[in-house]
Amino acid sequence: MIEEGQLPRSRKPWRGDLPIAAIAELAGVSPPTVSKVLNGRGGVGEQTRRRVEALLRDHGYRRRQTSAATLRIEAVFDRMLPSIAMEILRGVQEVASARDCIVGFTDVHRRLLAGQPWVEPLLLRQPTAVITAFSTVTADHGEQFAASGIPLVAIDPTGDLSPTPAVGSNNWSGALAAARHLLDLGHQRIGLITGPVTDLSARARLDGFRAALDYAGVAFDATLERRGVFTFDDGRDLGAQLLARPDRPTAVVCGNDLQALGVYAAARDAGLRIPDDLSVVGFDDVDQAAWLAPPLTTVRQPFGEIGATAARLALSLADGHPLTQDRYELGTALVVRGSTAPPVTR
Amino acid sequence: MIEEGQLPRSRKPWRGDLPIAAIAELAGVSPPTVSKVLNGRGGVGEQTRRRVEALLRDHGYRRRQTSAATLRIEAVFDRMLPSIAMEILRGVQEVASARDCIVGFTDVHRRLLAGQPWVEPLLLRQPTAVITAFSTVTADHGEQFAASGIPLVAIDPTGDLSPTPAVGSNNWSGALAAARHLLDLGHQRIGLITGPVTDLSARARLDGFRAALDYAGVAFDATLERRGVFTFDDGRDLGAQLLARPDRPTAVVCGNDLQALGVYAAARDAGLRIPDDLSVVGFDDVDQAAWLAPPLTTVRQPFGEIGATAARLALSLADGHPLTQDRYELGTALVVRGSTAPPVTR
Repeated sequence: MIEEGQLPRSRKPWRGDLPIAAIAELAGVSPPTVSKVLNGRGGVGEQTRRRVEALLRDHGYRRRQTSAATLRIEAVFDRMLPSIAMEILRGVQEVASARDCIVGFTDVHRRLLAGQPWVEPLLLRQPTAVITAFSTVTADHGEQFAASGIPLVAIDPTGDLSPTPAVGSNNWSGALAAARHLLDLGHQRIGLITGPVTDLSARARLDGFRAALDYAGVAFDATLERRGVFTFDDGRDLGAQLLARPDRPTAVVCGNDLQALGVYAAARDAGLRIPDDLSVVGFDDVDQAAWLAPPLTTVRQPFGEIGATAARLALSLADGHPLTQDRYELGTALVVRGSTAPPVTR
Repeated sequence: MIEEGQLPRSRKPWRGDLPIAAIAELAGVSPPTVSKVLNGRGGVGEQTRRRVEALLRDHGYRRRQTSAATLRIEAVFDRMLPSIAMEILRGVQEVASARDCIVGFTDVHRRLLAGQPWVEPLLLRQPTAVITAFSTVTADHGEQFAASGIPLVAIDPTGDLSPTPAVGSNNWSGALAAARHLLDLGHQRIGLITGPVTDLSARARLDGFRAALDYAGVAFDATLERRGVFTFDDGRDLGAQLLARPDRPTAVVCGNDLQALGVYAAARDAGLRIPDDLSVVGFDDVDQAAWLAPPLTTVRQPFGEIGATAARLALSLADGHPLTQDRYELGTALVVRGSTAPPVTR
């Protein structure tokens, strides 16, 4: 777990042992070339850039902070579900504002769609630190940030970004709790709609679900598992497949709340009532989960605390403090509402 | 309508005719006192502050922009529905990023709850311009910003902030379209759940609804009108009241989508099917409207374009260009989905 100790209120300007001129000498380039690499500007050959980046990284270069007014965390999104994005932003802001730090908002959806780079424009704006909240951030991006001396913290990346720190939820435990809740109610035939299981989070949820069945001595029926991409359409289409079976499941666990919304639609189309004919469990606990008819039982991810943790780590890195780990997992909680009930024996 | 012409790409630093020293002399105070007023700092008597503010306003003082990197619009929210807030933010960002302008995010919910000021901390951070997206912004706030030389644009304020510019939707036309859609389907007994009608937007929607009935020669039944505060609970509770009547309405128009979600819950509790037994129309077209079972017919507000327009106005003001009007209304559009159908004759 993350240390909850106070971060120092006064920023301690810090940089590596070597000034830019020395880095330039070591790399055999001019100081302006080092500046270009630092600021993500063009006009530097690929090989030179990599050599300078490596030197900057090795010497732990950190951009000097000039004044309190310049403290700024940029939070970067790629069209994430709004209620999740907003909770993360608020968490970031809460920690940032205690340090008089501005929170910048950027959505890179259009850039990514157009195949444009998103790292370089960010580096040019010289934020104090960057927090990404989208899945396609890679270890390469992490290296680019490391080389420019701007700390990067990734929220729930699909892969392993080490040594770039990542913050997410304990997905395995959350899915375990969801499946156990249904097993406790008496369900035995439980359908599962997952996200893309190449993603760490989707895979962890799948594993947690299976573990609950194992512990309960209930055989896992692979024909009741469907793989999607975390969308409403997944839930509706894959849910319809599961519900069309003569031996349809009495409950469905979904990879996220959007998929659960889709299962609601599929159940309605099939003339099935929730929870009388079908129990449904989601994952996330987005705003609308509580506003559904019936309200959705789901696994709550602490998005506000995830954002706050990412901000604490980002500012701590900007202060020059090394982190003690590179993956921070916050606890999930099962929220039981009206979409789950004991199965009706048929 | 707003002018869609290009804003100049180069910023033109601009300020009023008089330097701070001259303002100080006119006000009979020291230059540092003028600075304090400009920056929203304390330590200035109320009467002095008002005198200095008036002089600054009269002389059209604008803060000098120092460098491109300092261009920053702060978008301020008070726990708005996330899908609306995120669309507004994206619209602001789209316009801002074309000018290399950073978008700062602030949610002042906690400050407002705690009775703390929100204007002063914002002014201290010296943004290029501020966009507010919450209802409790007043003409007094507008004056504070005007005095500090930081342009303010308000999105959908509940009251009239003139001369502070406001951006919103054409609520009257939207509600007119919603009611006409139901009348065209053959509904005559139409329930109405409104927001707080002291708000300009809620009142305009009520008036548009009534106008549609008038045009159609359908008498307005005041007993079918219920007033709420734009929440899910409104929709559920006031919807339940309407549906419990022996002569219940065959359709309900809601002040926003959240209330419509509440009516979905009330219909389910009453054992009524949508749209077979009851048609429902929302207002806003938030994300979840399309994910409901059945998907919600609603009046779309162009939140992205509202954000973009607010950003254009804010940057134009920061460039020193006067605005031609102080209320900008963007068009709404009826989105017909599965929650509306002809009434079944009983």
